[in-house]
Amino acid sequence: MTDLTAVLSDILGAPHVLTGADMAPWTCDWTGQYRGEPLAVARPADRDQVAAVLRLAGARGLAVVPVSGRTGLNGGAMAQGAIVLSVDRMNRIRQINPRSRIAVVEAGVIVAALDAAAEDHGLMFPLAFGASGSALIGGVLSTNAGGANVLRYGNTRDLCLGLEVVLADGRVLDLMQALHKNNSGFDLRDLMIGAEGQLGIITAAVMKLHPRPAERATAMVAMASLDAATDLLNTLQDASGDAVVAFEFMPRAFIEGHLALHPEAREPFDAPHPVNLLVELAATRAGDLAGTFEQILTTQLEAGIIADAVIAASEAQRRAMWARREAAAEISFARRPVLDTDIALPRDAVADFLRRIEPLLRAIDPGCEVLSVAHLGDGNIHYTCWPSRDDAGLKAALRAQIDALAVGMEGTFSAEHGVGISKLAPMARHKDPVALEVMRAIKAALDPQGILNPGKTLPRTHHDPDL
Amino acid sequence: MTDLTAVLSDILGAPHVLTGADMAPWTCDWTGQYRGEPLAVARPADRDQVAAVLRLAGARGLAVVPVSGRTGLNGGAMAQGAIVLSVDRMNRIRQINPRSRIAVVEAGVIVAALDAAAEDHGLMFPLAFGASGSALIGGVLSTNAGGANVLRYGNTRDLCLGLEVVLADGRVLDLMQALHKNNSGFDLRDLMIGAEGQLGIITAAVMKLHPRPAERATAMVAMASLDAATDLLNTLQDASGDAVVAFEFMPRAFIEGHLALHPEAREPFDAPHPVNLLVELAATRAGDLAGTFEQILTTQLEAGIIADAVIAASEAQRRAMWARREAAAEISFARRPVLDTDIALPRDAVADFLRRIEPLLRAIDPGCEVLSVAHLGDGNIHYTCWPSRDDAGLKAALRAQIDALAVGMEGTFSAEHGVGISKLAPMARHKDPVALEVMRAIKAALDPQGILNPGKTLPRTHHDPDL
Repeated sequence: MTDLTAVLSDILGAPHVLTGADMAPWTCDWTGQYRGEPLAVARPADRDQVAAVLRLAGARGLAVVPVSGRTGLNGGAMAQGAIVLSVDRMNRIRQINPRSRIAVVEAGVIVAALDAAAEDHGLMFPLAFGASGSALIGGVLSTNAGGANVLRYGNTRDLCLGLEVVLADGRVLDLMQALHKNNSGFDLRDLMIGAEGQLGIITAAVMKLHPRPAERATAMVAMASLDAATDLLNTLQDASGDAVVAFEFMPRAFIEGHLALHPEAREPFDAPHPVNLLVELAATRAGDLAGTFEQILTTQLEAGIIADAVIAASEAQRRAMWARREAAAEISFARRPVLDTDIALPRDAVADFLRRIEPLLRAIDPGCEVLSVAHLGDGNIHYTCWPSRDDAGLKAALRAQIDALAVGMEGTFSAEHGVGISKLAPMARHKDPVALEVMRAIKAALDPQGILNPGKTLPRTHHDPDL
Repeated sequence: MTDLTAVLSDILGAPHVLTGADMAPWTCDWTGQYRGEPLAVARPADRDQVAAVLRLAGARGLAVVPVSGRTGLNGGAMAQGAIVLSVDRMNRIRQINPRSRIAVVEAGVIVAALDAAAEDHGLMFPLAFGASGSALIGGVLSTNAGGANVLRYGNTRDLCLGLEVVLADGRVLDLMQALHKNNSGFDLRDLMIGAEGQLGIITAAVMKLHPRPAERATAMVAMASLDAATDLLNTLQDASGDAVVAFEFMPRAFIEGHLALHPEAREPFDAPHPVNLLVELAATRAGDLAGTFEQILTTQLEAGIIADAVIAASEAQRRAMWARREAAAEISFARRPVLDTDIALPRDAVADFLRRIEPLLRAIDPGCEVLSVAHLGDGNIHYTCWPSRDDAGLKAALRAQIDALAVGMEGTFSAEHGVGISKLAPMARHKDPVALEVMRAIKAALDPQGILNPGKTLPRTHHDPDL
């Protein structure tokens, strides 16, 4: 037993300090792209133990990487030569108040478990993405996770009222309020959310719950092109009374990629279409949502705006529509070498981006193949490129092209997955230089030793050629 | 002409530097509670002039107070011995994009003018409060203003996508994006919003617009007590399909205060009731909202949950209902001495707070009178107390009692008006000490000279007896 293990065991109890082979799950991310050998894995039971681990790390100048459900895509939880601080044992739902529609939770609560607990009260926690059965509250807060329902319910930041954070030096920042208005000084809550563990470790939160919809209506909608999609979304929103909760885009190649992996699945339409949308409406007031939806879609079909539409006739059909969409990561990572990106554009620039990016990538690597899938209502594209060979320089060049076009079209190189390691290069290249300076100044003020999640999120220099 | 005036005139042009008697409007706030003699009033035309003024101030160690529509209630724009930097000349609406439903505006645009411009496109800018005809975008962003529609559309922070900020040293922080997702580093946008000019001067923004409702239904609703109000709100939300945009509370004393000032106004109901609610529903989809509303209210009336209800039968009746509610500040400040507060509580603690606070205040000043009005859907109470005599110590003691009870009931001493000068004492007394330390660290990192709006927002020390 090393000295570090011994001291951590004194703080946490020996069973909650993992070393050697026991650390295996923490040495590689699920996509297999990021690897690192931690010093130890510390699994504290409460915020005081978190604070004690941070004080120990500070005294010894050791790095600490806060780790949650390990479902991220950008290497943000990689911990080479650092202490992994896993929040998974802090997993209590402390309170659900159905009258105020809030939940008080610890950082280690599984996202889907919070939703299941809310369901007992007729409520829901609306954050929805493929990994919600594994992702933890601490992680979705630290990355400001998004997903398929952001259009209606917002991202994680929009779902959080209060926060408890242990700072780098072990001080506890107590912002655990359940208030809808609180203008008492700087917005430290939103600063901590999405900070990827650079400024502190989130240990607990007050989250908003929403009424569980009384009705849902879900459809696959086909279009000849994406050009009219923004207008279709506006029409759907207005005609349904803002009932659109999801507006997801899958091109033909995505449908084919899904069928290749899941031969038991069915085609969404009788004929293939270039644009396949998964659209879901939801309402808390029971009415005739499916009827309304059918009426709107019929009008759009007659006007030639859409080419076909199929409304799910059962929960099983609805689940099949979502299973196809949620297979996105599986489809992307089924082939290697792969590079996955996550960009956002002004909503009505998505069609133009997709037209322009493909020839630009083929100019770099004529043999590459590409695939897109989009939270179209948010202008958020997950763009996958399979290069013709496994060459780090080639992959970097392809990534750089995707980022550059997105930024050139007034978009961002990082929409919802965060920066971690994989977006350090575009952070250095494209982020407003003053914004980087301000981030570094805040980081230096709150973590002067730089012990929290070093080497992520903030590039060391602008235009660093090594990144 | 002083040297300062001359140098400012070189930057801005002589007509845009005001001194002496021309500064009169900037020497006192509209409530008459805060006074100060500025060194000069600078009215820059663009962000480069803002930066030049800040560099000048930095070089000379002079304080700069950013000033917008001067409709605030907390003294945040008072400028004793400082340069007033007024953003009112930067008043262009640069762009309205009806397809993306966004507006690009400069800080000096009047809130109501943005809404009027959006209306030309069938859209609206939903921020709604009494002073929206005078308040400017820069001010509502700097204070994260709220108002009557926060329940449905959120506060100013929720309505902002992008921001341009000139930092204390003249650097320009460019976060002017129109994206619904952008996880590229720390959330500097939300840090700047609500920072009351401590961290930089907001010069432009990208704001969200919403579809203008196709239908509204507005009612006055009477209840015997507030105890069932939270349940009523939940019922209304669920039964209307989340159509509630305003849920405002006025006690009987408020109705009487309004009638005393406006004898031409009418009683809301045939008989007086202790609890008077202004409830508004809105929907983008034309249907029969008034019919739905009537049905819900009839059910609630028959169940004995509410005592009476009157749905506005015309736009004139609706306007009259809102005119009564919006007279709140007029009613409060019609009598002196006065102290006005702005607190928030968990929504279902409001009734209990109102029961408990009055005897506590009378124990301090048996002759005081009180009045409350609340954005009840947000748990936000504007609590006014008229003490029996104009005594600073007495007023401070009454304020301290209101703040202490709110905080003791898990609320906040500052809901939507911000801190400015008037809330420095409760900031020192009640704000989490670690949060204060973090705020001071960020302030020191971004404004090391302390030239931006000094003496506001951040109390100098904890429990400073002089505050």
